[in-house]
Amino acid sequence: MIKTDILIIGAGPTGLFTVFEAGLLKLKTHLIDALPQPGGQCSELYPKKPIYDIPGFPEIKAGDLVDNLMEQIKPFSPGFTLGERAETIEKLEDGSFIVTTNKGTQHHAPVIAIAGGLGSFEPKKPLIDNIADYEDNGVAYMIKDPEVYRDKKVVIAGGGDSALDWSIFLADVASEVTLVHRRNEFRGALDSVEKVGELAKLGKINLVTRAEVVGLLGEGHLNSVVINHADEGEFIRETDYFIPLFGLSPKLGPIADWGLEIEKNAIKVDNSYDYSTNIPGIYAIGDVNTYKGKLKLILSGFHEAAIMCQSAYQRIFPDKRYVMKYTTVGGIQGFDGTKKEAKKEVIKAIEV
Amino acid sequence: MIKTDILIIGAGPTGLFTVFEAGLLKLKTHLIDALPQPGGQCSELYPKKPIYDIPGFPEIKAGDLVDNLMEQIKPFSPGFTLGERAETIEKLEDGSFIVTTNKGTQHHAPVIAIAGGLGSFEPKKPLIDNIADYEDNGVAYMIKDPEVYRDKKVVIAGGGDSALDWSIFLADVASEVTLVHRRNEFRGALDSVEKVGELAKLGKINLVTRAEVVGLLGEGHLNSVVINHADEGEFIRETDYFIPLFGLSPKLGPIADWGLEIEKNAIKVDNSYDYSTNIPGIYAIGDVNTYKGKLKLILSGFHEAAIMCQSAYQRIFPDKRYVMKYTTVGGIQGFDGTKKEAKKEVIKAIEV
Repeated sequence: MIKTDILIIGAGPTGLFTVFEAGLLKLKTHLIDALPQPGGQCSELYPKKPIYDIPGFPEIKAGDLVDNLMEQIKPFSPGFTLGERAETIEKLEDGSFIVTTNKGTQHHAPVIAIAGGLGSFEPKKPLIDNIADYEDNGVAYMIKDPEVYRDKKVVIAGGGDSALDWSIFLADVASEVTLVHRRNEFRGALDSVEKVGELAKLGKINLVTRAEVVGLLGEGHLNSVVINHADEGEFIRETDYFIPLFGLSPKLGPIADWGLEIEKNAIKVDNSYDYSTNIPGIYAIGDVNTYKGKLKLILSGFHEAAIMCQSAYQRIFPDKRYVMKYTTVGGIQGFDGTKKEAKKEVIKAIEV
Repeated sequence: MIKTDILIIGAGPTGLFTVFEAGLLKLKTHLIDALPQPGGQCSELYPKKPIYDIPGFPEIKAGDLVDNLMEQIKPFSPGFTLGERAETIEKLEDGSFIVTTNKGTQHHAPVIAIAGGLGSFEPKKPLIDNIADYEDNGVAYMIKDPEVYRDKKVVIAGGGDSALDWSIFLADVASEVTLVHRRNEFRGALDSVEKVGELAKLGKINLVTRAEVVGLLGEGHLNSVVINHADEGEFIRETDYFIPLFGLSPKLGPIADWGLEIEKNAIKVDNSYDYSTNIPGIYAIGDVNTYKGKLKLILSGFHEAAIMCQSAYQRIFPDKRYVMKYTTVGGIQGFDGTKKEAKKEVIKAIEV
């Protein structure tokens, strides 16, 4: 059982910054995210795209913002449960909670901060009858660890950036990469489309266009796919893995059944004070919450995280009074023993 | 008369970021600040000190944050009235406002955003009877344009960073710099203290310690100061300018008399919606406002600015409905004709 002070559900920018604000209050944090890496949408959907409205950055790529936040929270050594979705919640008699993921990992904390963005990103799955039989047995909808595919045969399906970028990446890792797409036309960054074209010419990617994967074969583990080509009809290709990358769509998911007050697919919170939900001890911050005048902006998530952590502190330590110190004055004391602080002024005589 | 959509009082980080959020809504902005440069406290009090809690910056110097914000808002061409304090406000029949500064500059706008931080920074003045007679006639409490002092004689008083740094700077500009301080010991960055020591040894700064300026002489314009030395008693030194740099202390100032609801030296606002004050059309954002759970953090000012601009938009254009577009999707269209946007995805066929 993982124990922490604030259990943060969602490791997007808001969830990550919560680690920092909690850390200033000496509260420990642990994050759960359904995606295999931190950063939420920023890492998964548009890591290379610029954002223009993060205060202080005239322009920053979403992936770089995530990297910066990871660096900023490092002193507070957060824990991570990645690639697992928060599934059930149980309230204990002392008011604390146990949250269990779809893989059975259990987390115990007095405070829950739901920073779930638009929800957990669920892969869009192709309509192949027996695909569920091969999930985790040769079929994957996202790539958590590319090393799994080293020297293996891989069939990727899709026509967008994910399919293009992973085909390029795995061309150097897998023994064979086949990219299957319904059309000749791909939709993605110009660089990526051109690179896939080059690798196909060099024979490093088998490009099969105007085709789709319609069947899966193999005893227990996948061993081949059935591809249906527009002109040539069906044929079988041996493969160790089939990775359909048809995009992700966000769903509030199991959190919707936790008894929280939901409005327009978002969690209602008290924005006049601390972004608490209708369940004491559970807060909702960032894009996942709603209130009068709500703006789904990353910068609003940052503010909500800061306010929410103060309330969490009072909840966890009802008898202590926290006196806020500016970081410029008090510096940062990391849980990992690191310390950052402004250069002190000196008092020094001048003798002429 | 200067006309704008949102008149922002205070050009600290919150005021500056308001320009950006207003600009996204195609609203024009103009800023008033009592200090001679934008950035508020960050520029005036601690430009070289690191801040650790700006989201996305593991560490950033306050002065650099201001520079970044100035760069970020450049496309929206804000106007500035600097070195003047907002003094009086008049509400016109149509609900718009005229704000006049202590120097008589008039500004007209339908919406006022008070982003006044801890208040306007008022210089601490030395107790010299006739000092008021020489204000703007040889006596200055802050340096707006160092070129004023080129080839002139200058007496600076003080023992902190401002006195040290301006003595160093003016040593290369003025014909003669005298630094007067009550003690031998100076309080400031080690570099600055040492540099003043060197310049004094080289004769580029006349250092007079254990002394203070006790009298001012001259017909109309200042022409000399009376210095009282602990051991040697009084003597007269000719000078064109006397600049006492004894620090600034923030005062809410004339805004306190505008009829706004004030609590603990801050302006009460409706944080459950749009950070509006008790006077319709006037908002208060950043450190100058107060509400239940308020945190005086720069990151909160950014959020409050974003929310407040949406409300201002509805006030200025009651019949229009604004549909928010993410900057990553819609880019930034500057008022200066500039345009920033993410690289578009392409749809491109791959022929093998």
